[in-house]
Amino acid sequence: MNQDVHTLCHGRPVAVVGAGLVGAGWAIVFARAGLRVKMFDTDPRVLGNATPLIESQLGALRRHGLIDEEPAAVLARIAPAATLAEAVEGASYVQESVLERVDVKRELMIALDALLAPDAVVGSSTSGIPGSAFALDLSISPRVLIVHPVNPPYLVPVVELVPSPQTAQASVRSTDALMQAVGQTVVHVRKEVEGFVLNRLQAVLLREAWALVQEGVVSCEDVDKTVRDGLGWRWSFMGPFETIDLNAPGGVADYAVRLGPLYQRIADSRSHAEMWDAGLISQVEGQRRQHLSHDELESRRAWRDERLMEFAAARRRGES
Amino acid sequence: MNQDVHTLCHGRPVAVVGAGLVGAGWAIVFARAGLRVKMFDTDPRVLGNATPLIESQLGALRRHGLIDEEPAAVLARIAPAATLAEAVEGASYVQESVLERVDVKRELMIALDALLAPDAVVGSSTSGIPGSAFALDLSISPRVLIVHPVNPPYLVPVVELVPSPQTAQASVRSTDALMQAVGQTVVHVRKEVEGFVLNRLQAVLLREAWALVQEGVVSCEDVDKTVRDGLGWRWSFMGPFETIDLNAPGGVADYAVRLGPLYQRIADSRSHAEMWDAGLISQVEGQRRQHLSHDELESRRAWRDERLMEFAAARRRGES
Repeated sequence: MNQDVHTLCHGRPVAVVGAGLVGAGWAIVFARAGLRVKMFDTDPRVLGNATPLIESQLGALRRHGLIDEEPAAVLARIAPAATLAEAVEGASYVQESVLERVDVKRELMIALDALLAPDAVVGSSTSGIPGSAFALDLSISPRVLIVHPVNPPYLVPVVELVPSPQTAQASVRSTDALMQAVGQTVVHVRKEVEGFVLNRLQAVLLREAWALVQEGVVSCEDVDKTVRDGLGWRWSFMGPFETIDLNAPGGVADYAVRLGPLYQRIADSRSHAEMWDAGLISQVEGQRRQHLSHDELESRRAWRDERLMEFAAARRRGES
Repeated sequence: MNQDVHTLCHGRPVAVVGAGLVGAGWAIVFARAGLRVKMFDTDPRVLGNATPLIESQLGALRRHGLIDEEPAAVLARIAPAATLAEAVEGASYVQESVLERVDVKRELMIALDALLAPDAVVGSSTSGIPGSAFALDLSISPRVLIVHPVNPPYLVPVVELVPSPQTAQASVRSTDALMQAVGQTVVHVRKEVEGFVLNRLQAVLLREAWALVQEGVVSCEDVDKTVRDGLGWRWSFMGPFETIDLNAPGGVADYAVRLGPLYQRIADSRSHAEMWDAGLISQVEGQRRQHLSHDELESRRAWRDERLMEFAAARRRGES
């Protein structure tokens, strides 16, 4: 894999711009694949915190058998940079994970336009801002696209690639190859739709879940049980289309004829005209706090990341 | 657990009525927990096929370390019955998995009304027919409720309990205790809503997925990747509410304020006025068949069940 990666990057480093949780996660993705990573953040404290954070995350990955090298060997390939210019100098690929604001991202694109090598590609980690909003009408515009990860990207492999109307297909292809080479799973979002694909799917499921709680049909905890001990099992290794393809004797078309009308009636029963109001939010908050106090959120997040690593290790065993 | 189970059933057997895939799966759930099971089907061939099917499924569970006894020892607790009367005689609990038709289920309820012990509870495996449609105005009506499993119930633990307006709370409580004692995860659906909870959540996600494919935003395979290598990871051990509760610094209320508006806009962008039409169905069918031919569906289902067992074994390790 690494040879592959070096060829794809022409032996040049990659740059990570924005060194918060997401940026630090990206640095691990690239460095564990053997690439040299230069990391920059406009806030020196954020940049300073990134290295110890990455070190502890690499230690956890090593404990779970998810990296073959010692953490120090991977960390040695990640170098903080004092300036944006230093970070992107000679970089073949730049992953930006700066503040989720159009003006901040536009300002960065203008700066990169003046700094980048003529073949460098820029991936944006934005989860909601389309490239059209900040990446158009620059000389680098054909080489900018959305590369939306799930946090943390070194644990959950999917990335959504979303070109803007000005993104060149060659940039999509080379980023696809790079992401696969560093171990990510690439999803191609062919049009700029709000929420891209992952958050749209999450959104519709959450909307229905909140509505069912509001109507007193089910509790939050029971919604979680329904997915955790039911729906989530097949989805975690097949996804929804393969699931239904196998759930009717004749495959997905057979399934659509059998269950399409039911799903239509369910869809028709929802307009989602109303926002989640304060009363509903405090109801859901109250139910969650019965299971987990505010003070326990942080430790539960650590538990989650441990489970994600066990899951990743089990998946790796299952696939090997 | 077994002691518990015997106490809950007063040392009496349980009956499985309808011995197809779902009924046979239920027989395994009860028998592996130590209960004696009497199994009946109006079609002698279906009843005849159930025993060898159960035997092979028990063998697979044993190979994956999911049962501690030899398959023969579990199978010895499952007895086919020649008549409905023989099957339910002395039974403390009856799980019906007969044909998914109101008239067939109503006919069964009338027959059970004349046969059951005065304390016996009846759970229906229906995935879509509410108790109101077939279980009202009988002497057993207070003791009939929906106990909707995912197939196969011996692998995927969630069951939805849905009382009809005439179901007694005592029946819900005793069935909740029995289901937990045999290792299922109980979800309480407090009102009869179409699709209950599990299929409503699946329906809204599928509706959005089909719509995104129809609009050319994404391919079926990439939708599956998005869930399989992204959304499905956290959902498979936390569920959607715990996922978002941990995804904002302040918990779920904080998350709702930050992302509620985005999800509202996504929900507002869908009316789902139109059915899945023939063109869309053949488009999705065509995409699936590129990945899996009709001839491969059966072997892929066997693969799926193997993966589900690996997943169940890994979950058991993770929780122990």
